[in-house]
Amino acid sequence: MERARVYIALLHYPVYNKRMEVITTSVTNLDLHDISRVACTYQVNGFFIVHPLKSQQELVNQILDYWRNGYGGEYNPDRKEAFQVVRLADSLPEVIANIAGETGVKPKIVTTDARVYPNTVGYSLLRERLTREEECFLLLFGTGWGLSRELMLSADYILEPIAAQRPYNHLSVRSAVAIILDRLLGGD
Amino acid sequence: MERARVYIALLHYPVYNKRMEVITTSVTNLDLHDISRVACTYQVNGFFIVHPLKSQQELVNQILDYWRNGYGGEYNPDRKEAFQVVRLADSLPEVIANIAGETGVKPKIVTTDARVYPNTVGYSLLRERLTREEECFLLLFGTGWGLSRELMLSADYILEPIAAQRPYNHLSVRSAVAIILDRLLGGD
Repeated sequence: MERARVYIALLHYPVYNKRMEVITTSVTNLDLHDISRVACTYQVNGFFIVHPLKSQQELVNQILDYWRNGYGGEYNPDRKEAFQVVRLADSLPEVIANIAGETGVKPKIVTTDARVYPNTVGYSLLRERLTREEECFLLLFGTGWGLSRELMLSADYILEPIAAQRPYNHLSVRSAVAIILDRLLGGD
Repeated sequence: MERARVYIALLHYPVYNKRMEVITTSVTNLDLHDISRVACTYQVNGFFIVHPLKSQQELVNQILDYWRNGYGGEYNPDRKEAFQVVRLADSLPEVIANIAGETGVKPKIVTTDARVYPNTVGYSLLRERLTREEECFLLLFGTGWGLSRELMLSADYILEPIAAQRPYNHLSVRSAVAIILDRLLGGD
């Protein structure tokens, strides 16, 4: 399969709460499971969980350890395999540095949101870019009420919302990651 | 929008456990949330939670009540809206009877599974069928390790697996519903 390298990151900061204040969210166990399984299915090169707090990082490490090395992986080897794709990071700059260190190129940043931003790109345009082997992309997903506006506007590409024209457009981040990776990388 | 009526159902029986024994699974709270939000986004006509046990039905009703009538809906009106699409049923025959009663036609049954079955249909074929206004479809999704073989083979259409050609193909039912509804009904 000739394809750009594609990484994804789930950010717990800087994201909005429902009052549009920038906050840090807690880790959701099922985000790790569902998104790892999607990432593994669509063969992304790495799934970064990004959280600035040590206590939440320890929680993530406990979950990962249970499925990678503990009884979880024995009971369900498919889950063990899915969790191999996960990595932990303090911040977005750390994720970018890690990817650049391992690939030799700085990844192009792609953001997504249910809100409409100017200059968004469609899925078919980005899908075409992802076939270019020499490129490297990092797709950012926000928890809570979505990524901070500053972060959105600093991206190389802003993907259009999944269902911008529909009356209801409030998917979970788990569903959004599944749909977006299928649109960009699906249909083997 | 001219389109067939489309219903979805999440079955907790008859489904497999990891030893391929037919069992009844427990309700997962986040299935209700994530799938309701997807169902509402893609404007399906109803999302049935199917469980034979009264105790599990009571649990579902408590969750629904909290979001439809209780504090949940006040705190998050988007969630209140999403949960309007949910209905509860004892069994698949009850779901079919309900749909037939309300639409005047017996729905065509569509099943999906990560396993490969003979005579599967592709997404584009079914997508085309869903544009026929006079038709009515019920898409079944299994919890646990998937729908029983008997149920799969009794369907009018078996959709091909989401990622049949890939080395890893173990998505959560939440991710599968999101991807399948996007493939069949997405892209307004």
